[in-house]
Amino acid sequence: MSNIIEYLEKLKEETDNYLKEILSHEITPILLGEAVRYAMFGGGKRIRAILAITICRLLQGKDENIFPFAGAIECIHCYSLVHDDLPAMDNDDYRRGRLSTHKKFGEAMGILTGDALLTHAFWILAAKTKAKDVVAPLVENLAWLAGIGGMVAGQSADILQERKAPWEDLLGKEKSTQDLLAYIHNNKTAALICCACKAGAIAAYAKPEEILKVAEYGIKIGLAFQIEDDILDVTGSQEKMGKKVGKDQASGKLTYPMVYGLEKAKEKAETLVKEAYQAISFIPDNVILQDIANFIVHRDY
Amino acid sequence: MSNIIEYLEKLKEETDNYLKEILSHEITPILLGEAVRYAMFGGGKRIRAILAITICRLLQGKDENIFPFAGAIECIHCYSLVHDDLPAMDNDDYRRGRLSTHKKFGEAMGILTGDALLTHAFWILAAKTKAKDVVAPLVENLAWLAGIGGMVAGQSADILQERKAPWEDLLGKEKSTQDLLAYIHNNKTAALICCACKAGAIAAYAKPEEILKVAEYGIKIGLAFQIEDDILDVTGSQEKMGKKVGKDQASGKLTYPMVYGLEKAKEKAETLVKEAYQAISFIPDNVILQDIANFIVHRDY
Repeated sequence: MSNIIEYLEKLKEETDNYLKEILSHEITPILLGEAVRYAMFGGGKRIRAILAITICRLLQGKDENIFPFAGAIECIHCYSLVHDDLPAMDNDDYRRGRLSTHKKFGEAMGILTGDALLTHAFWILAAKTKAKDVVAPLVENLAWLAGIGGMVAGQSADILQERKAPWEDLLGKEKSTQDLLAYIHNNKTAALICCACKAGAIAAYAKPEEILKVAEYGIKIGLAFQIEDDILDVTGSQEKMGKKVGKDQASGKLTYPMVYGLEKAKEKAETLVKEAYQAISFIPDNVILQDIANFIVHRDY
Repeated sequence: MSNIIEYLEKLKEETDNYLKEILSHEITPILLGEAVRYAMFGGGKRIRAILAITICRLLQGKDENIFPFAGAIECIHCYSLVHDDLPAMDNDDYRRGRLSTHKKFGEAMGILTGDALLTHAFWILAAKTKAKDVVAPLVENLAWLAGIGGMVAGQSADILQERKAPWEDLLGKEKSTQDLLAYIHNNKTAALICCACKAGAIAAYAKPEEILKVAEYGIKIGLAFQIEDDILDVTGSQEKMGKKVGKDQASGKLTYPMVYGLEKAKEKAETLVKEAYQAISFIPDNVILQDIANFIVHRDY
């Protein structure tokens, strides 16, 4: 496991350096810029950026065509955390062991910081991607899977489910708890991870069938990631996670361990990772992608 | 004035029809889609879309390259209203005579509906613009002027000023009230109107110097628009506006009439409109752009 940890650390640093340049004092307004940097540099793993960069490199794509996307998707991920933490949403005062953005800068600034990051993601992508012909497909991929075709749709269902919205408002007809859980997991978390993987392939001008395979890898490890998140909320330590554990049960969130039990959840995550390996077997030297998938289900933070 | 009203009505209808197709039931998740449509179809004037389309047509650009942008910028405008109305922001229960989105669907859905619209704007732009080579400049233009290079920056300063944030946190050094007012107006409102005008020129493959001229027109009428908004908050009727008047003064917002007085505000708006005429004098048959500018300072809603 030590090699993969080193690899992840190295790519996290590359991503952070890129983001620090992009979000420097010179190009952000004073107080908003401070809040934006606070939200962005709170110690995230940058797993989405790392996946995009790794896949692009494996497929012989150029860094100059994927780093802007890598920065952009981390802006999207961070905005979603800032908005999630708001009182009207999950109401979290802490995130990764620090005050959440709205606790630090006030609730209005929490909303606006999220809006700024979400908008700026697309600026980075359009302004900084070197090959202009990949901008449209990269923006389309990101805006769909981060929005009504993915993350925001999943978030809505998650929040409304927690608040006991009528079932038909969430999926539209008679569906099982399992269906709703799958819908929420697929959209809330896996969609954006899938988006990162797809982008790596798009930026490398991969063939359509290769993009599909990479997307399959993404959705599988994305689901495994969320299941592991659910598991860690039951079994994890507050110290390592940097946030309260046991929150899901307290708030009535629909989680994998809740619906299937802890053992079945662990089995499911392992199965997903194996299926993910299969999907990217067409890529030579794909061992790093196996390691990342493996890391995702064996992490303890 | 009747011709221009007719023209605006016709283009508003064209924009609405386009948006109804783009935001149809088929491609939006159930409850989120309902909230998105509620937020989008509340009787706005669509002035940003109309400016973009009008300028593109005057410069011989194609509808297929500007309608997606027109839809996108209206999504951006509407998301900003939804987030503005939130309790932590302006705390408005009503908007254009109806319940605001968060009052209708709950606060969490207010946040998520705004996020969905903001994200989806970029999807529309990337997926639906016919000429793919204008996507990158259109996205760059929109993301900058709707984000930290414009609207969100202006919003932050506006909200923080209202809440008496220390002056240096807003502009960074010793600046006058007039400077701060100009900063807020330029960014909060004029930036997005300028963005709409620029996009019309970009989509029509206008020359750089033409784009600059059109941007100048946009910033001037954008400022005039906001000054008129400030004036209407003092002199307008609640019935016609569909929202409370006199709110700015009550909340301590920095407005043009407050800083310069009502008469000077009216004069300033008229001057801006005349300067705006000048900027677009290079466009043949530009009378419609003069009429729109004129409408902006003489509207009563």
